[in-house]
Amino acid sequence: MKNTALDLNICYIGGGSRAWAWDLMADLALEPALGGTVALYDIDYEAARQNETIGNKLHETDKRWRYCAVRTLDEALNGANIVIISILPGTLDEMESDVHAPEEYGIYQAVGDTVGPGGTLRAMRTLPMYDVIARAIGRVCPAAWVINYTNPMTLCVSYLYKVFPGIKAFGCCHEVFGTQRVMAYMLGESLGDGRKVDRTEIETNVMGINHFTWIDKASYRGEDIMPLYARFCEKYKDSGVPGLGARANSAEYFRCDNRVKFDLFLRFGAAAAAGDRHLAEFLPPWYLKTPETARRWGFRLTPVRYRREQYRQRAEKSAKLVRGEIEFERTPSGEEGVRQIKALAGLGDFVTNVNLPNAGQIPNLPAGAVVESNVCFSHNNIRPLVAGEMPRPIQALTLPHVLNQQMLTEAAANHDLSAAFTVFLNDPMMSIAMDDAKTLFAEMMRRTDRYLSWWKQ
Amino acid sequence: MKNTALDLNICYIGGGSRAWAWDLMADLALEPALGGTVALYDIDYEAARQNETIGNKLHETDKRWRYCAVRTLDEALNGANIVIISILPGTLDEMESDVHAPEEYGIYQAVGDTVGPGGTLRAMRTLPMYDVIARAIGRVCPAAWVINYTNPMTLCVSYLYKVFPGIKAFGCCHEVFGTQRVMAYMLGESLGDGRKVDRTEIETNVMGINHFTWIDKASYRGEDIMPLYARFCEKYKDSGVPGLGARANSAEYFRCDNRVKFDLFLRFGAAAAAGDRHLAEFLPPWYLKTPETARRWGFRLTPVRYRREQYRQRAEKSAKLVRGEIEFERTPSGEEGVRQIKALAGLGDFVTNVNLPNAGQIPNLPAGAVVESNVCFSHNNIRPLVAGEMPRPIQALTLPHVLNQQMLTEAAANHDLSAAFTVFLNDPMMSIAMDDAKTLFAEMMRRTDRYLSWWKQ
Amino acid sequence: MKNTALDLNICYIGGGSRAWAWDLMADLALEPALGGTVALYDIDYEAARQNETIGNKLHETDKRWRYCAVRTLDEALNGANIVIISILPGTLDEMESDVHAPEEYGIYQAVGDTVGPGGTLRAMRTLPMYDVIARAIGRVCPAAWVINYTNPMTLCVSYLYKVFPGIKAFGCCHEVFGTQRVMAYMLGESLGDGRKVDRTEIETNVMGINHFTWIDKASYRGEDIMPLYARFCEKYKDSGVPGLGARANSAEYFRCDNRVKFDLFLRFGAAAAAGDRHLAEFLPPWYLKTPETARRWGFRLTPVRYRREQYRQRAEKSAKLVRGEIEFERTPSGEEGVRQIKALAGLGDFVTNVNLPNAGQIPNLPAGAVVESNVCFSHNNIRPLVAGEMPRPIQALTLPHVLNQQMLTEAAANHDLSAAFTVFLNDPMMSIAMDDAKTLFAEMMRRTDRYLSWWKQ
Amino acid sequence: MKNTALDLNICYIGGGSRAWAWDLMADLALEPALGGTVALYDIDYEAARQNETIGNKLHETDKRWRYCAVRTLDEALNGANIVIISILPGTLDEMESDVHAPEEYGIYQAVGDTVGPGGTLRAMRTLPMYDVIARAIGRVCPAAWVINYTNPMTLCVSYLYKVFPGIKAFGCCHEVFGTQRVMAYMLGESLGDGRKVDRTEIETNVMGINHFTWIDKASYRGEDIMPLYARFCEKYKDSGVPGLGARANSAEYFRCDNRVKFDLFLRFGAAAAAGDRHLAEFLPPWYLKTPETARRWGFRLTPVRYRREQYRQRAEKSAKLVRGEIEFERTPSGEEGVRQIKALAGLGDFVTNVNLPNAGQIPNLPAGAVVESNVCFSHNNIRPLVAGEMPRPIQALTLPHVLNQQMLTEAAANHDLSAAFTVFLNDPMMSIAMDDAKTLFAEMMRRTDRYLSWWKQ
Repeated sequence: MKNTALDLNICYIGGGSRAWAWDLMADLALEPALGGTVALYDIDYEAARQNETIGNKLHETDKRWRYCAVRTLDEALNGANIVIISILPGTLDEMESDVHAPEEYGIYQAVGDTVGPGGTLRAMRTLPMYDVIARAIGRVCPAAWVINYTNPMTLCVSYLYKVFPGIKAFGCCHEVFGTQRVMAYMLGESLGDGRKVDRTEIETNVMGINHFTWIDKASYRGEDIMPLYARFCEKYKDSGVPGLGARANSAEYFRCDNRVKFDLFLRFGAAAAAGDRHLAEFLPPWYLKTPETARRWGFRLTPVRYRREQYRQRAEKSAKLVRGEIEFERTPSGEEGVRQIKALAGLGDFVTNVNLPNAGQIPNLPAGAVVESNVCFSHNNIRPLVAGEMPRPIQALTLPHVLNQQMLTEAAANHDLSAAFTVFLNDPMMSIAMDDAKTLFAEMMRRTDRYLSWWKQ
Repeated sequence: MKNTALDLNICYIGGGSRAWAWDLMADLALEPALGGTVALYDIDYEAARQNETIGNKLHETDKRWRYCAVRTLDEALNGANIVIISILPGTLDEMESDVHAPEEYGIYQAVGDTVGPGGTLRAMRTLPMYDVIARAIGRVCPAAWVINYTNPMTLCVSYLYKVFPGIKAFGCCHEVFGTQRVMAYMLGESLGDGRKVDRTEIETNVMGINHFTWIDKASYRGEDIMPLYARFCEKYKDSGVPGLGARANSAEYFRCDNRVKFDLFLRFGAAAAAGDRHLAEFLPPWYLKTPETARRWGFRLTPVRYRREQYRQRAEKSAKLVRGEIEFERTPSGEEGVRQIKALAGLGDFVTNVNLPNAGQIPNLPAGAVVESNVCFSHNNIRPLVAGEMPRPIQALTLPHVLNQQMLTEAAANHDLSAAFTVFLNDPMMSIAMDDAKTLFAEMMRRTDRYLSWWKQ
Repeated sequence: MKNTALDLNICYIGGGSRAWAWDLMADLALEPALGGTVALYDIDYEAARQNETIGNKLHETDKRWRYCAVRTLDEALNGANIVIISILPGTLDEMESDVHAPEEYGIYQAVGDTVGPGGTLRAMRTLPMYDVIARAIGRVCPAAWVINYTNPMTLCVSYLYKVFPGIKAFGCCHEVFGTQRVMAYMLGESLGDGRKVDRTEIETNVMGINHFTWIDKASYRGEDIMPLYARFCEKYKDSGVPGLGARANSAEYFRCDNRVKFDLFLRFGAAAAAGDRHLAEFLPPWYLKTPETARRWGFRLTPVRYRREQYRQRAEKSAKLVRGEIEFERTPSGEEGVRQIKALAGLGDFVTNVNLPNAGQIPNLPAGAVVESNVCFSHNNIRPLVAGEMPRPIQALTLPHVLNQQMLTEAAANHDLSAAFTVFLNDPMMSIAMDDAKTLFAEMMRRTDRYLSWWKQ
Repeated sequence: MKNTALDLNICYIGGGSRAWAWDLMADLALEPALGGTVALYDIDYEAARQNETIGNKLHETDKRWRYCAVRTLDEALNGANIVIISILPGTLDEMESDVHAPEEYGIYQAVGDTVGPGGTLRAMRTLPMYDVIARAIGRVCPAAWVINYTNPMTLCVSYLYKVFPGIKAFGCCHEVFGTQRVMAYMLGESLGDGRKVDRTEIETNVMGINHFTWIDKASYRGEDIMPLYARFCEKYKDSGVPGLGARANSAEYFRCDNRVKFDLFLRFGAAAAAGDRHLAEFLPPWYLKTPETARRWGFRLTPVRYRREQYRQRAEKSAKLVRGEIEFERTPSGEEGVRQIKALAGLGDFVTNVNLPNAGQIPNLPAGAVVESNVCFSHNNIRPLVAGEMPRPIQALTLPHVLNQQMLTEAAANHDLSAAFTVFLNDPMMSIAMDDAKTLFAEMMRRTDRYLSWWKQ
């Protein structure tokens, strides 16, 4: 086994990002075994330039990494071993429509970027962008590993494979980690010896689709901890356990009391493994009937105005970083991207959950559908583990989404607007009258039409 | 091929019925090739006795059939070649709860006997009765053909096979015929030569589950009529075609304008083949958001008080028939039971749709799940035809119901109340908050608890 | 239902045939309800011309059918509703190689046209011809019904669908009828009242692949006759029942004592439904180790010199028929082609076994593979029945052939000689050493290379 | 992660073994992180006692392990965390019949313990013993990990799960390692820098069934080495590479020139991953037509008299070891059992190939069938990796064996002798006439009937 890989070429699409990109920059700075170049590509070139500056400052001394903003996608991909895709499809104006337009029809979304009316419209403007990206990867760097962070995750990964079937892409998301942190907290509470359990010490079997993922088996040091989790859920089902699972610096809007998670466990016997805000969106309006229902279950709907404020603050921070007025914080992000890159570079195997086409991982979900489950990372290789069959009630909740996602992938490939509306309509969140559904779809299309020219009547 | 079968032994469970039993009596009276005995078994023995009198009057002269009310199930099944099951599980008081209790939570059901909260509760009291029936058939007449008419159809048939896997049972329903009648009307309108097309002249490919059945191919005299149907749906999508599809004497509450059917065709490209009242119940509240939504789509919710009135009238009519004050009308019912019995007796093969476990009929629905599709009836044999794969969007709408029905079958076999609640909850109609769902379930249990002792906490 | 169809356009590819074509001509002459034109296309135009003369003589008076030899395939297909394909791929010289070359390596084939080394080589020269035919049908008469009689049946049908997936083709073979005749004989013997049972009165469930087809259920007048068949097999397992199953005028070389059939039933519990000569070829050399083994089991290997003699006699007979020296015998052929054409023309539905891609008929064989099972013929429609799962031991014997056939279909589409050799090798009959297999393949290629230019090294 | 596990309780069934047991004893002696007790159970108690003595001598100083011969199976299993099963089913007299009786009918087996007539008969006497073992494990130590080394591997593992579905059993075999060693040799030759590559440095994707396992992907330090392997096979296809793959001390009878392996690769495009002697037995007699054919392909048939001699020598050696006349050699065995035990004890995860029921590993082999593929070992857990679909030609060769193995598992559970004969017959090696097959089966039964009382006529 090698000890270092200092000649990596990373291409970052969405390289002007001030969230995921900064996380990566921090993690790369903290990892001495890796080095090379990072090409930053963004439609906001200026933002990429700022990140170039910030990134290179981090390595002024050791020169381990060289950051470089580039003006074209092809230039960015040229020579890449690793491609990271983390883009905002459209602007916050479009997200405003995704999240809040449905509220006028009594449909409340906590996030609005995965499923539901918001997720569908977001996908409708994202997939045309992914069409460009997938083709470019196939042309310029077909052997590169492609890591997707963009939402809607499942559709982005599914569409990459649709356009370029030979792609070596997978999708990463930290939502499962949150539930692992809940379990780690539980163990700390239970062991009672002050020991601090890290989520990575818990071995979980992950199965499902992104943001609607489940853990049916979990162990710590070889011992099954699901019975303990059952008691934990029973104990906290009413009070919840606020804040757990979220990253330390998460704003209130991103936190939850985990009561939805506990309620789902007590009902279905497997641990739902995503933030409550995401989980609730995959279901009929059990937890999202009204904003008040959500509040009662211990979570908040994230208003887009909050995201605007967040963006504004980050832009200011970026300017300060560029001007050197403040120092970049080298804090581990909690993400696993860098650990995965290390494994792919031959610096140590490990198992974690990612999103990949189903090749046997979950035999009772359709073959080829993108699913989230454990994968073994090794030198230039990823090999999915068999997660096993989903319990039938969970399968019943999951399958309509899987089929919807397969239909929307097809619909995008065919520019088929009518099929896209069928997907919009088939979502379990769409508990409204047919005429209202038609009106809402038209309205959401109208508000975001700058990004929808792909779709043909 | 034989010409007659005059030695049949039919056992009618629910033999005091004044709807399906009378239909059968009329059809048997009109069919000279069949004869034998009909054992009438009913928990209301007096009602069965009345039907015995009415039935025997029909054959005073020809003595072809002998009707006989019997006091026990085993006696009724003894020697039977054909068993017909057509029962009301519980009374109209329970149906009152099934249909109207959910309205207090904003859930409106047009029928309330198949899926949705009403269908689930109805199943919960029916399946324990079917447990008794299936065991008795296995013991007394295991080789008999068993025809089920009781709702919820899918669950009744599914449970018969669960308890006695060797049973030769199938489920019959006339809902598909209604859509065939719509197509026959369309052909009459289109041919324009005054020709009257009978629904049986149209060859349809039927696929789905009972009351949520679809026709993806239809032909008349060898010609594909789906393009014509597409134009027909387009033409009448707004106005609808009132009354079509229903039996001649159907009350207003059982009729519809077929607008839901046309809307679904235009959306999904296959003809939904059941009354609009049934179809709407399998979907999120697109057509059932409020009673007003339903009315706008051209159908009515059937109030249980209407059924009470109907029952009262039929009881009066029965008394008059018994006393000979009025004559029994020998009108063909439009049902196919007698035609099926003829075919099984070796008097002519034919193809029609029934409900059976999936053995390949619909490869993209789970094996073993009860589905509705075409079957070839022949001498002592029924052989399903391959219907083919469901189109994906229809599969997406159907699968959650199929899985729910498999879960409720299991739940009943295990007396598992918690699993039954999961089924109750997973229904797409349940677009209410979780706490309300729990309260509603408890309330509906309470109101019908006389029939729910089977289920264990 | 109509009473006649007198405007049919049949295209007969291989129209110079003196076997299948004469059978068809006899059956058409005997069926008053059908009429129209038959275009005869053959690479031996003169033979087609002779059949034109013979055919038109049959209808000198009633003019119901007009036979017409044509010079090109496109002309023959033009306007066709029905296309019949019944060709000899290559000449008897090639068949000589197919059948007899392997004997030098101790591989004995009874027929040599389906599987085994002979079947593979025969397919290798047939499929390129079918490539031409399938494309022409797609271009000239895509909506026509296509009936294939050519062997290797499964591969011919499979390849038609491979090249033109929209084709409405099915494959017909009389081998199953033979086993039905055995069962009819058995019933006659058993009933003992001199009653003559016709094979069509027996309802059988057919499953498998052509020439290796099985009957797992059979009934007569509604009664299961499989227990009777078990006793029959037991009774005659040693003596056999000579001649049964074959057509009346079959030569000794086409007959068998049915001992293989009985032995397979006693071993596997389902009735093998093809002539013993065909059945034996699908198996390891259990019944074909040597010519002596075959003789001991009551059947003969058909030498190609016998076929040469047969051909010579038929050519003479043809000349005499053309010259009017002898009269064409209007004897029913026992084939079902004309009955199928009647049904497709809307003159009466019926169920029989044909070869079609698996769409659910046999769930434990691969989807899309061509299988033989029952199908319901109706007006311009054929609908397969669900045959059900094959019993596992029979599935184990069948699957290697199915996979081989799928591979050879692919191999032909790709002109892939190496893949064709893999198929040649994987056959259970190939119980020879690897080097011998290579030599034999090369030798068989060499002897028939006039027809193998399609295949690329 | 812990550093040691010194409290293990291993139960060794077949603990008098002088092959596998000595390997384990050597490996345990060399692994300082593990310790505990080893209960040795054997029907030859004296042999177990000798191993007790030998084992305890190894730990005279460090006392890490305590070996203890016990007299009953239940006693041996009591408290076990790990159960190892490695037995000789019957004696070498039975093996003599397995291997050599078929030779009288022209069937030559190189090993005779897996498939073919010898494998089937061996299974027929082994599975009744496994019935006892599986029940005892279910009763005494249901949570123990069970490692099977006995052949026929697939059937042993399959039957353990059949009898006790909750068992945590897997099967281990070193045959794949041999092919990995061939690849390591190839890399050494190719790199040309004197570097010595260890087989564990090569990452392979393993798929198939035990002794007929395939590698379709292999990489070294992240680079695909399959193109190199293709050239290697081409280069050595005629000369072979003698001795490679075998363990250093392997006798001539266990060695091969790897020519079968290379020939299969060149034919099927995937690397057959077992010794040639095993591979050849799964195929028609391509490489085993005669002993001479085998010799030409570079391998030998192992005569049972050689095994007798081997046994005799080991018995002598055992006596000397017990008496202390010679020293036990502490040489690593090359087996992975101890590494697996370490991983299960929480001392480090790793991936290797074992035999387990198919839960998605190989989607185009039947679910539940025991397959060999990669598995991730971790603390008290084993998780299979998705190996993916088998290439179709390999699937065609494998499926008949898989179905045979499923049938023999069923047959054993039902004591069904007739079904066992069907399995015997269905083997591709059985290229003999049916009557000979019957005679041979009867003869092999007769010669080994002491162990066959389980089977009912």
